[in-house]
Amino acid sequence: MNAGDTIVAAATPFGYSGVAVIRLSGPGVSRLLEQTTGRTSYKNRVATLSDLLSKTGETIDRSLVTFFASPRSYTGEDLAEISTHGNPSIVNEVLSLLIGLGARQADPGEFTYRAFINGKMDLVQAEAVASLVGSKSKENTRIQQKIISGDLSILLNRIRSELLDLLSALEHQMDISEEDLDLEYINQLEKRVHRIQNDVDSLLGTFKMGQLFNSGVSLVLSGPPNVGKSSLFNLIANDDRAIVSDQPGTTRDVIDLEILLSGVPVRIYDTAGIRGAENSVEKEGVYRAIQKRQSADIVLSVYDSPNAIPQHAERDENIIYILNKTDTHKANVGNGVIHISCKDGSGINTLLIKIKEKIGVEKISTDLTYLSTKRQFSALTDCSRFLGAAATLCLNRASDLEIISYELREAAGSLDVLLGKTTAEDIINNIFNNLCVGK
Amino acid sequence: MNAGDTIVAAATPFGYSGVAVIRLSGPGVSRLLEQTTGRTSYKNRVATLSDLLSKTGETIDRSLVTFFASPRSYTGEDLAEISTHGNPSIVNEVLSLLIGLGARQADPGEFTYRAFINGKMDLVQAEAVASLVGSKSKENTRIQQKIISGDLSILLNRIRSELLDLLSALEHQMDISEEDLDLEYINQLEKRVHRIQNDVDSLLGTFKMGQLFNSGVSLVLSGPPNVGKSSLFNLIANDDRAIVSDQPGTTRDVIDLEILLSGVPVRIYDTAGIRGAENSVEKEGVYRAIQKRQSADIVLSVYDSPNAIPQHAERDENIIYILNKTDTHKANVGNGVIHISCKDGSGINTLLIKIKEKIGVEKISTDLTYLSTKRQFSALTDCSRFLGAAATLCLNRASDLEIISYELREAAGSLDVLLGKTTAEDIINNIFNNLCVGK
Repeated sequence: MNAGDTIVAAATPFGYSGVAVIRLSGPGVSRLLEQTTGRTSYKNRVATLSDLLSKTGETIDRSLVTFFASPRSYTGEDLAEISTHGNPSIVNEVLSLLIGLGARQADPGEFTYRAFINGKMDLVQAEAVASLVGSKSKENTRIQQKIISGDLSILLNRIRSELLDLLSALEHQMDISEEDLDLEYINQLEKRVHRIQNDVDSLLGTFKMGQLFNSGVSLVLSGPPNVGKSSLFNLIANDDRAIVSDQPGTTRDVIDLEILLSGVPVRIYDTAGIRGAENSVEKEGVYRAIQKRQSADIVLSVYDSPNAIPQHAERDENIIYILNKTDTHKANVGNGVIHISCKDGSGINTLLIKIKEKIGVEKISTDLTYLSTKRQFSALTDCSRFLGAAATLCLNRASDLEIISYELREAAGSLDVLLGKTTAEDIINNIFNNLCVGK
Repeated sequence: MNAGDTIVAAATPFGYSGVAVIRLSGPGVSRLLEQTTGRTSYKNRVATLSDLLSKTGETIDRSLVTFFASPRSYTGEDLAEISTHGNPSIVNEVLSLLIGLGARQADPGEFTYRAFINGKMDLVQAEAVASLVGSKSKENTRIQQKIISGDLSILLNRIRSELLDLLSALEHQMDISEEDLDLEYINQLEKRVHRIQNDVDSLLGTFKMGQLFNSGVSLVLSGPPNVGKSSLFNLIANDDRAIVSDQPGTTRDVIDLEILLSGVPVRIYDTAGIRGAENSVEKEGVYRAIQKRQSADIVLSVYDSPNAIPQHAERDENIIYILNKTDTHKANVGNGVIHISCKDGSGINTLLIKIKEKIGVEKISTDLTYLSTKRQFSALTDCSRFLGAAATLCLNRASDLEIISYELREAAGSLDVLLGKTTAEDIINNIFNNLCVGK
């Protein structure tokens, strides 16, 4: 991604609708607006009805054009939003026109990348824009909104500046007491490092829940053939009104759909019944079913006969054992096995409650800010490890302050990476490429 | 549809994208904005960064809110456009919030309906908004844009006022000369009526082309099994880069996709080979193939043997006879039969030219305004018929001016229906229901 030129992209999904929005950002925005509408100046932030004209002067569309002058725009550059009728052929013609006049089709996430480059947001905030756009629940929207508005960045910057204070004090100490070790100083240092590590660790503690809301969990229906897995799949799908999306399976036998349970996106996979298969197509299905089961966060293991259920079923952390068809046989199997009947619907509510319990979802707290990406978790895990190493060196009365200083500098470095103050190009590109074109 | 209350809808397609736009129109817009953003007033037409707050005061999203004061808005009422992050869960939450505060989910086309009710556009313009949003080509976009900007309305209103002038002169004539028929007056009247009818008829003459661009044509591949229909289907699909959309068939054996030929949307249907089928599934396929063939605008009748092609093939107006597999047999069949080879691609360009010729598409003229809906055509056909009847009465020296006046009033009435000055409720509803929600 190159800053400096003028980029353009559709910011709304492809489709026939009331309105489509085209975004334009960079130094050429004023010139391009003049060339396409004939208007030499736009009042800042005022929606202005303008005819978009083709090269031969025909009206492509009558649009609302809003100009946002640099630096007070989303990207920090001159930016325009062109609101046309929601028609793909209009959008394509306007895009072609602008590209013909020198604009460049934006890469995915490039508008947000420019906001980052121009200091409108840090990397944690930019990451949250991607998570927000992809958010599937109110709960995750709240979490990401708080990060975009700066809650996490403020916390991280506070930790970072405490660390930098500590480091400069330490450098000072190293200057004045090169020889004899000041035990009292080392005690105090250890306490302060420990306090910072606690702050980092309490942020790390929010990751499980944040990731749950942001990425969701997978739930695989598994078991012998004809025990009612697909019936159960359909029941769960119909039972929960908050279906986010359903799409045909990518593999022959695994079909899946996504529901929301307490705000957590749960992707449910229906798999082939597991048995010694006879033909090669079924064999492939069984193989995939077993693979799916192994990668699942939670397995719903369905049976229709009490004798088939393994002993000590309750010991398997991520498996829920289910006995189906209890309308026909009145078995009594304990050990946490859920009794259901897909025929009369009994036990389904109990099952859903059990699933929520296994997911371990709690109500999100509005006081907390949640980590929600692996990058955030891994950078802070590094930070905590370096802080831990520094604290241990203090406790062991390390005589060389230099190595403590080294660990603290590494810890600060992890925060810099997290905030995008120093981050490798490819990591940055990866974050912005996760965003859609036009954002 | 009820005017008077405040309506709300998403104006952009459902999906994950940079931006989503929510529209709000009616007397409650200011109150609703205050209740959701806390801001008591918005500057007219200025895009203002605002936090949308849930009932409990949490930020749902940081959005751009633009307020358009009545009457200078799309609907003529107070209107707001709320531009949020392009995320369905945010859009749904904002819609729920606004509906909870008293807004009503808009019906399809209701924003444009309000523009019509409030005199911002007539029915012909409103109809063109629907056609524009659904437009699949640059050419049709141009045609509809001209109608929206008022070109057709100006023409129709000019014709209408000429008619009304004529009518009031006629009424005057009826007052002053109740008894004796003024032949010179009748001659003049006939000429003027005829001139108006000519104007109407030349508009009617634009319908074929206008409808072609607006509705497109259907093209059905037909023929015995295994002559290469599906290969040809794929070749045409790949040959034309301007594929608008392709979707899996709704019926078992008919699959279709849409391409643009010279700006005309051409939907191509591949059908089952026609033969005495053995099993019931194939029988159904053959039945559907025959049905499709009968309803097609143009049939591509494909053969792989020269002897199978009917005599006098050139006489069928809407059929193009095609001899495939000419790479293997070098037959020489005349009579307008197109020789192709799906294997080496020869003859495909000739075929495409022939298809364009059959469609009869001409380059659209920027001087003309085109009728493009059946409603427009049928109202103007009525108008022309009434004018013709009036002219005939004049030529026959009808002694009763009253009956001439009746025909002219009917002609004017057709124009009123067309422009929506007097139009039945169900016709109006039908026009607006063709639009999407949020427009």
